[in-house]
Amino acid sequence: MSVTMEPSAAAPTPAERSEEAALPAVTWPHRHLLDLDELSWPEIELVMRTTDAMREVLARPIAKVPALRGKTVTILFYEASTRTRVSFEVAAKNLSADVVNISAQASSVTKGESLIDTVRTIEALGADMIVIRHSVSGAPYLAAEHVSGSVLNGGDGWHAHPSQALLDLYTMRSHFPGGSLRGRKVAIVGDILHSRVARSNIWSLTAAGADLWLCGPATLLRGFEAWAAAGRGAGGTGTGPGGAAGAGGAGGVAGVAGVRGGFHVTSDISAALRDADVVMALRIQRERQAGGLLPSLREYAARFGITRARLAEAMPGVLVMHPGPMNEGVEIAPDVAAGTGSVITEQVTNGVAVRMAILYLLAGVHGEERAVERLRG
Amino acid sequence: MSVTMEPSAAAPTPAERSEEAALPAVTWPHRHLLDLDELSWPEIELVMRTTDAMREVLARPIAKVPALRGKTVTILFYEASTRTRVSFEVAAKNLSADVVNISAQASSVTKGESLIDTVRTIEALGADMIVIRHSVSGAPYLAAEHVSGSVLNGGDGWHAHPSQALLDLYTMRSHFPGGSLRGRKVAIVGDILHSRVARSNIWSLTAAGADLWLCGPATLLRGFEAWAAAGRGAGGTGTGPGGAAGAGGAGGVAGVAGVRGGFHVTSDISAALRDADVVMALRIQRERQAGGLLPSLREYAARFGITRARLAEAMPGVLVMHPGPMNEGVEIAPDVAAGTGSVITEQVTNGVAVRMAILYLLAGVHGEERAVERLRG
Amino acid sequence: MSVTMEPSAAAPTPAERSEEAALPAVTWPHRHLLDLDELSWPEIELVMRTTDAMREVLARPIAKVPALRGKTVTILFYEASTRTRVSFEVAAKNLSADVVNISAQASSVTKGESLIDTVRTIEALGADMIVIRHSVSGAPYLAAEHVSGSVLNGGDGWHAHPSQALLDLYTMRSHFPGGSLRGRKVAIVGDILHSRVARSNIWSLTAAGADLWLCGPATLLRGFEAWAAAGRGAGGTGTGPGGAAGAGGAGGVAGVAGVRGGFHVTSDISAALRDADVVMALRIQRERQAGGLLPSLREYAARFGITRARLAEAMPGVLVMHPGPMNEGVEIAPDVAAGTGSVITEQVTNGVAVRMAILYLLAGVHGEERAVERLRG
Repeated sequence: MSVTMEPSAAAPTPAERSEEAALPAVTWPHRHLLDLDELSWPEIELVMRTTDAMREVLARPIAKVPALRGKTVTILFYEASTRTRVSFEVAAKNLSADVVNISAQASSVTKGESLIDTVRTIEALGADMIVIRHSVSGAPYLAAEHVSGSVLNGGDGWHAHPSQALLDLYTMRSHFPGGSLRGRKVAIVGDILHSRVARSNIWSLTAAGADLWLCGPATLLRGFEAWAAAGRGAGGTGTGPGGAAGAGGAGGVAGVAGVRGGFHVTSDISAALRDADVVMALRIQRERQAGGLLPSLREYAARFGITRARLAEAMPGVLVMHPGPMNEGVEIAPDVAAGTGSVITEQVTNGVAVRMAILYLLAGVHGEERAVERLRG
Repeated sequence: MSVTMEPSAAAPTPAERSEEAALPAVTWPHRHLLDLDELSWPEIELVMRTTDAMREVLARPIAKVPALRGKTVTILFYEASTRTRVSFEVAAKNLSADVVNISAQASSVTKGESLIDTVRTIEALGADMIVIRHSVSGAPYLAAEHVSGSVLNGGDGWHAHPSQALLDLYTMRSHFPGGSLRGRKVAIVGDILHSRVARSNIWSLTAAGADLWLCGPATLLRGFEAWAAAGRGAGGTGTGPGGAAGAGGAGGVAGVAGVRGGFHVTSDISAALRDADVVMALRIQRERQAGGLLPSLREYAARFGITRARLAEAMPGVLVMHPGPMNEGVEIAPDVAAGTGSVITEQVTNGVAVRMAILYLLAGVHGEERAVERLRG
Repeated sequence: MSVTMEPSAAAPTPAERSEEAALPAVTWPHRHLLDLDELSWPEIELVMRTTDAMREVLARPIAKVPALRGKTVTILFYEASTRTRVSFEVAAKNLSADVVNISAQASSVTKGESLIDTVRTIEALGADMIVIRHSVSGAPYLAAEHVSGSVLNGGDGWHAHPSQALLDLYTMRSHFPGGSLRGRKVAIVGDILHSRVARSNIWSLTAAGADLWLCGPATLLRGFEAWAAAGRGAGGTGTGPGGAAGAGGAGGVAGVAGVRGGFHVTSDISAALRDADVVMALRIQRERQAGGLLPSLREYAARFGITRARLAEAMPGVLVMHPGPMNEGVEIAPDVAAGTGSVITEQVTNGVAVRMAILYLLAGVHGEERAVERLRG
């Protein structure tokens, strides 16, 4: 599995191109959703427009359409999760699919059977789509090679969380005129190294033309400055760091600012937040402390916690985001999480709509017209 | 959160009033179901009549009505439970709602997120109603303050279990002419101190005009005699004991008999069972023994177990009840549990019908007429 | 609970009779599915034909029929399982039933309540059918005596797994001309002693007239040779060994070959596989090693593992089966599991169709004509 960064720094971003010309009719060519690097910008925009339609469905008295009636969506989670699991479950049920939940902890999935056998069996049991969350990066890719239906990556290791990045994108766009992020400064603050949320957001936010800043302790940024630098080369051959890599030291971290269509990496929270239009705090995993990569939670909160005072450096009306669940008082102050600019709850609701859109498009209903027709049902 | 006892000892009970005059048309004014002290007697009667309608639905070949189609009921349980969880699940599905189960043990709910954030997230994920069971008394009240939909208390700590008390009431009423409990002697026997079932039943059974007796070891009655005494004062300002309280010793326990509209507290099992129309045995939690509050199970069974011999003191045809799950041979003898007067299985089925009624009323379908109309669907 | 073996060695098998004459119209007389010894051959054939109809349903774009709308199927599993639980869940949902999952590990089922009280409660909660998996042989029989609805045995101890044997039979039949197994050599290889799959397959495969061979280490065949010998007597009074028995040593194991309508028991893997039409490998439970009944996994694999080399002794085109989940490299080689003759994935899909058929027949829709009618819905 290799991930390739686009777009290059030299060429206009797809977002910029799409703003110039009317979008052609798009059909959905993908069978799986593994990460956002495999989606073109027009395809991402189709997800966004389909999500608009799903938001309308959610606003109805009976928030249910028959689009996936008779289909089975199986949610196979090897890691505990409430919000992502329930979000996919509700999304699938809103489309009238049947949902089967399999929690690897509570099931015989742990009897030593291989992932390949497990997903083959799940498909043979009738799953039309399988949503997988797994602690091993790349697991959904492996699964996708062995089924004839669709695999949706619900989060794999440190690698990717594409539906989260799509809901983040949708939420940001809904707050800016024309839905454009071009030139908008977005700061993602936290444990970047171990964050699949950050990695997937890099693809979509750079594609959208945002001015993206990744910020955290130097130990939790390792490898990203190299990725950012690679993004500046034509053609974009950079690959996300895997953790084992770790070329750059703290000294080099601050030196990669100013990449157009790429992103910035810094440990300077002031630089990241200054004039930011969006600030996204990532969850700090308490268990990381054991590895010595994190200072104490108190120290982390003091240096990187998103507080009302720090947000004063950002743009007026800055959007505050968090993928949840929050450690309030650590990565984000309670009054910020509950404050006026917070769109954290919107993210959750948009997550259901985005996942409805993804399931709908992957179900093989190609093109918006038929989509709209069937939604009328 | 404060609970206030009604009715006063002097005034006629609501039950008595309602028997004198025809009931006016009632609409359902409550968004949540947290405990029964917030329901007026006519509202309790509306639940009872709606339950009658739901029993009819359950008797159909296809026991399903479309009343809640497109609604999502999320069942958030922080304590293990089979019967209450399944009862709400089946009730919601019978009304055509989608059901999402979240077990706190198996989910990331335990990742340290606050209850408030959890319920806000669950609502943002599309829950129209949230059923909460929690080991902390008052947790559903806290949740209710932070959602715009409905919260149903599925049992909180020692505090309340309103749907259980409603199904108990429904079951009793169905066995007495005219459905009246006025003057009927009801004995609840067991670990009163730690019982949310007992606490919620106090509200509904005193409101119904029953002659209520609470019986158990003196250590497991602490504080209740003071509550019973307070009930005698006009206006009813008594508050259920929280366990930390514990004013009365064993000596004072037997002295609070004779409260009209209130209740009796005693450690004398003969006094409690004599001429009883209903005997309800509560589950003995084996883990209470460690705290020294309970004698051995053998001693408990000998002194307070509901046996055929003890029931000879009760009225002929005495109803035997138990909220389940039973420790047969401890708080109730197996031949009593399976005997002629036992309505324990009826309680379970009535529980589904009562919960259908509650979900239905809380869903905002005001008034019986519209209810009946939609049930025809 | 006593199980009686049929058919006798002398009489023609039911399968043989049914091939001579047209089958009369059959109605379904059973309320439960506990094991296959209670089904007549025409009834097994009715399950097979109903499964054909369900396979057609599964092939539709919307794989759903309304046959069980408004019915609740409760899946009560005291042992972890993914495939059997999901198979019943999907089967029930395909028939439009509501499904309630109860996992004994995660529920208050473990609070000490008796199985009888649990199933009575589950029925009172609205279950029309209860699927039970339990580590204790006979548990579903006990349950069946105390409910008015249907009990389906989803696997009990070492005793029975009837739906697995039915899907095995269906899968084999689909690969032989005319669907007949008469005279076909079927070898089941593995831990026969502890296998409910093997035990249930004995009933159906001998009834089908197959030449059945059970093969494994001598310590894991104890008692089966006596059962096989008993099968030779007219009337068939043999009873499956319960594990406590263990009359025969390894010496006597090979001596029971040649039972017509009965089965063979051997530790000689060559004898079992020679000219076999079907080879079924059973899962080796690693935890059996502790008891000293099993050699090391490496030694087991060397002596009994189904490899490409060993299969060379079997018939060309031999079918390879496994109930799953597989320990690849132990009881079956990976290239065999994924090889041309493997029908392991077909077994999984057929399992859903067979369980749809069982649920459908048990739901009280008597006779094929009405079945076909309602399937048109």
